[in-house]
Amino acid sequence: MLIDNQPYRTIWRGDDGVVRVIDQRWLPHDLRIVALPDRAAFADAIAQMWVRGAPLIGATAAWGMAVQMAADPSDASLSGTYDILHRTRPTAINLRWALDRMAQALRPLPPAVRADAAQALAAAIADDDVAMNRAIGDHGLALIAAIAERKGRVNILTHCNAGWLATVDWGTATAPIYRAVQQGIDVHVLVDETRPRNQGAQLTAWEMASAGIPHALIVDNAGGHLMQRGQVDLVIVGTDRTTARGDVCNKIGTYLKALAAHDAGIPFYVALPSPTIDWTVTDGLAEIPIEERAEDEVTHVQGLDPAGQIVRVRISPAATPARNPAFDVTPARLVTGLITERGVAPASAAGLRAMFPDLAPPASG
Amino acid sequence: MLIDNQPYRTIWRGDDGVVRVIDQRWLPHDLRIVALPDRAAFADAIAQMWVRGAPLIGATAAWGMAVQMAADPSDASLSGTYDILHRTRPTAINLRWALDRMAQALRPLPPAVRADAAQALAAAIADDDVAMNRAIGDHGLALIAAIAERKGRVNILTHCNAGWLATVDWGTATAPIYRAVQQGIDVHVLVDETRPRNQGAQLTAWEMASAGIPHALIVDNAGGHLMQRGQVDLVIVGTDRTTARGDVCNKIGTYLKALAAHDAGIPFYVALPSPTIDWTVTDGLAEIPIEERAEDEVTHVQGLDPAGQIVRVRISPAATPARNPAFDVTPARLVTGLITERGVAPASAAGLRAMFPDLAPPASG
Repeated sequence: MLIDNQPYRTIWRGDDGVVRVIDQRWLPHDLRIVALPDRAAFADAIAQMWVRGAPLIGATAAWGMAVQMAADPSDASLSGTYDILHRTRPTAINLRWALDRMAQALRPLPPAVRADAAQALAAAIADDDVAMNRAIGDHGLALIAAIAERKGRVNILTHCNAGWLATVDWGTATAPIYRAVQQGIDVHVLVDETRPRNQGAQLTAWEMASAGIPHALIVDNAGGHLMQRGQVDLVIVGTDRTTARGDVCNKIGTYLKALAAHDAGIPFYVALPSPTIDWTVTDGLAEIPIEERAEDEVTHVQGLDPAGQIVRVRISPAATPARNPAFDVTPARLVTGLITERGVAPASAAGLRAMFPDLAPPASG
Repeated sequence: MLIDNQPYRTIWRGDDGVVRVIDQRWLPHDLRIVALPDRAAFADAIAQMWVRGAPLIGATAAWGMAVQMAADPSDASLSGTYDILHRTRPTAINLRWALDRMAQALRPLPPAVRADAAQALAAAIADDDVAMNRAIGDHGLALIAAIAERKGRVNILTHCNAGWLATVDWGTATAPIYRAVQQGIDVHVLVDETRPRNQGAQLTAWEMASAGIPHALIVDNAGGHLMQRGQVDLVIVGTDRTTARGDVCNKIGTYLKALAAHDAGIPFYVALPSPTIDWTVTDGLAEIPIEERAEDEVTHVQGLDPAGQIVRVRISPAATPARNPAFDVTPARLVTGLITERGVAPASAAGLRAMFPDLAPPASG
């Protein structure tokens, strides 16, 4: 998407052969572009969340494998890189999906041709992500257009950042919003702050402001109240992992918004490219391990101080510990539908299987 | 309660005749005691949230009236003070309750005796609050003790600060916790951060740390997940206003926790002294106006910077506006019970009427 009228992706290989990403830790205050020269830099970029968002993590892992294959295309290097990159984030299913796709394609090849093949495949994974998100945008656009036809302005609430910064381009939850704005639909976006890391306040708000889309920041506590009062028409969120029956594992707090939407009778949609579906998992609550991240993400908040410096401030007593589960699971019963690159699927095993008969494992029994 | 083994209340009249409060805006980083010399200072203290919490707001308004009566006990002064103090915060029912009680007692008196009467009544309102909260503590203690008997450690989640800092002493939601700890029950408290003003991170966490009670800070997004996973046994929150049928108006985000508790089958209790009941209101959602506060509470966060200074940092783009509804309404259907100074009442018109036949207006029809 555009930054100062200049088209960007979140990850790209430059004419100099170097892969670069937007280091998202400093947004919205500072736009920093960094080069990732080697495998260690890619692992740091994912683990320390210079890049984040399930699809972008997948694309970054693919490019990390490609860069390492150019340095050392041996079998040991391939296996070691798979392990190192896979360990960086435990929850994102796209990470494993992208690494599996790379490894399965590269392993049968002689080492001498792996570098070129890896580069071509990483580029294809990135391009596929862009195409899938654009298709998600078109399917979601139909939902927004239907509401706009009925009532004019459409108020959309979103949680965390499932925007273009979370993908290679377009975003998942934001793709329908960008498409609706392109179509001239009057959209207003309520942006959940999304503590602890504030991806909503820092990234989604920055995306909306950069694109000139009417929006307002709200604290994570406010969405229920606004839904109760009829001030939200539609919720669209992303997902880090979706189970074969439509349970949705996404940023912590998503489940609370799903409960509120259900209580108020407001449609709650999840936007996802099919690589986010984990066909090996059915019951999200029982089967998905939830990453617990560092306490200081909770006890500290980053922002711009009055002197214009980006600093982290401590908000709680020094003696107070914190707990920091990073994701939660929204049961399929609370999900109105799954907006995929092929269309809107019911959040159910049958719904997903019917939409993706070629990807779903054979039905048992 | 104790600070460094010294007993404190949140508001008191010193031997020098001056009323002082804890200016809570700087906690947990700095404990500042300030004198309130005149009516303007009391109005500032309430409006700018040097003090907050429905019961403490009521006691502060009462003391504000008393200080003004010592300066000018005329009818015009009485009416003007009522109006000035009443305008400071629109949602807290205790504010009106305390001012009504003061005005009704003082108006029939000759101006010459109003100062002494007002001082005695303000002191009584404060002492009554302490006694009511202590009684709430005993009734809530029974609920905690029953869980402890069944399973040992009791994990209690609370939202915002309904602690002793929100009252004159003991707190409402925290009174059962303090009483349980005194009884040797193994309690662990999950403290919701409570954006935008972070009363949980700044005040409740400070109370728990000061009292040596095991606790952990969590972001407002985390409670649903923890309830889903069986890591919460009991939710206790306070309330700014409770309707005659048991709808609960409390800090924004309370409703989301009530939905999650309901979904997980976890008891959700609200602790309140009877002055918090607004017998004139039935349907909280339809009838209670919700205060919208300044945008910068959402776009900025206060904390301690690496240099040890208390600063406010901006977390979102400069171009991003915010919405800031300060309270929400939890429908009675989601409330397991109301812990009052007389016992635990069902959250229903019949339940409240049976508990407070002397306060409830005559049933209509």
